[in-house]
Amino acid sequence: MTAIPVRDRLVDAAFALFDERGYEQTTADDIADRAGVGRTTLFRHYRSKEDVIFPDHDRLLAIVKERLATASKADTAIVAVTETVRLVLLRYVEEGDRARLRYALTSRIATLRDREIATVARYQRLFREFIAEWMGPAPGAALRAELMAAAVVSAHNHVLRRWLRRDTTEPAAELDAAMTEVVSLFAEPSGGKSNGTAVIVLHDQRDPEAVAATIRRALRQRS
Amino acid sequence: MTAIPVRDRLVDAAFALFDERGYEQTTADDIADRAGVGRTTLFRHYRSKEDVIFPDHDRLLAIVKERLATASKADTAIVAVTETVRLVLLRYVEEGDRARLRYALTSRIATLRDREIATVARYQRLFREFIAEWMGPAPGAALRAELMAAAVVSAHNHVLRRWLRRDTTEPAAELDAAMTEVVSLFAEPSGGKSNGTAVIVLHDQRDPEAVAATIRRALRQRS
Repeated sequence: MTAIPVRDRLVDAAFALFDERGYEQTTADDIADRAGVGRTTLFRHYRSKEDVIFPDHDRLLAIVKERLATASKADTAIVAVTETVRLVLLRYVEEGDRARLRYALTSRIATLRDREIATVARYQRLFREFIAEWMGPAPGAALRAELMAAAVVSAHNHVLRRWLRRDTTEPAAELDAAMTEVVSLFAEPSGGKSNGTAVIVLHDQRDPEAVAATIRRALRQRS
Repeated sequence: MTAIPVRDRLVDAAFALFDERGYEQTTADDIADRAGVGRTTLFRHYRSKEDVIFPDHDRLLAIVKERLATASKADTAIVAVTETVRLVLLRYVEEGDRARLRYALTSRIATLRDREIATVARYQRLFREFIAEWMGPAPGAALRAELMAAAVVSAHNHVLRRWLRRDTTEPAAELDAAMTEVVSLFAEPSGGKSNGTAVIVLHDQRDPEAVAATIRRALRQRS
């Protein structure tokens, strides 16, 4: 007998049984039986039968919180958010087929899907609180923190879903690109402290001289 | 006796009992009893005891879907999204104290909170599908639709929460302002069809001539 840890045996048993009999038809006792342990052992490791197939979110949320707490300034804050969200993504990717099995189940079973969605909301809240604190009490900062946290989590979920559906084999690179897009959306925080002139030029098809003249006029009008 | 509709009697009974006895300790039978109807009547109107205290989301989601479906072009799409999200907000506002009672319960009881969060995900999905369709198959459009839908829903929730907490008495005006912010975040869609040169000037503190020179150089380098 190979020494597969009890937790893993329970996870494998739960996935197999949910798949074979259906989620509703599987009890915690069935899972414990299949894993060759008692019911008490199952409940020492997991709070409920559905808990068995989800990642250890409490632990992962603690890691997220800790990683975010190391950042204090604006630039380190963006780095911290980006790195943290990549860390969460890679946890799923490391799971491999197990993550895909869970995805198949959460896509089909409303109870499990709702559970997953509620967990995502916990991550989003952590990001929101972190971003809000970092932004400080500027006007509009609360809304901005909310929008940014939602964007960060959506970017993560978008890439994760693409990986789960085998639409990408480069989830980490895709996440970095998606996070770059998120950061660029919020590049100029309202109430930001920038003093220079930020000029963003998009789609240049016109004569540089004409554009320069337009800008000169625009800047003069504002001063 | 005044003729309060059965549905409303059930809602009032559920809120009162959840508050008096706690959510877990209240059964569907208790709610039916308090409303002066039978258990069968309750289950003719609601799927479960927690269903009683939530708005009729199936109906509201159908209204959202229908309103979005009337828009076809980019400008009407933004208007449709903004109007639709305002419509959802106003449903909560019209409920008045009932919405605040629900908020108190969902803040305290995890089952109800998770249920609320799962519902929000259904709205977000409708917005995402609508925005994705409107954007078409441009590269990056799927991510962008995801980010935009998340922003729309977050803006709504931000204002709704402020109203629920009595932080604002002007929820509709605040939502309009928040939606303006959301629209401005996404003002230049990636893969957009613009051909001109969009120049965004932020915080001009430098000499217009110097800026014009920089831009002239930047445009020349790209051509």
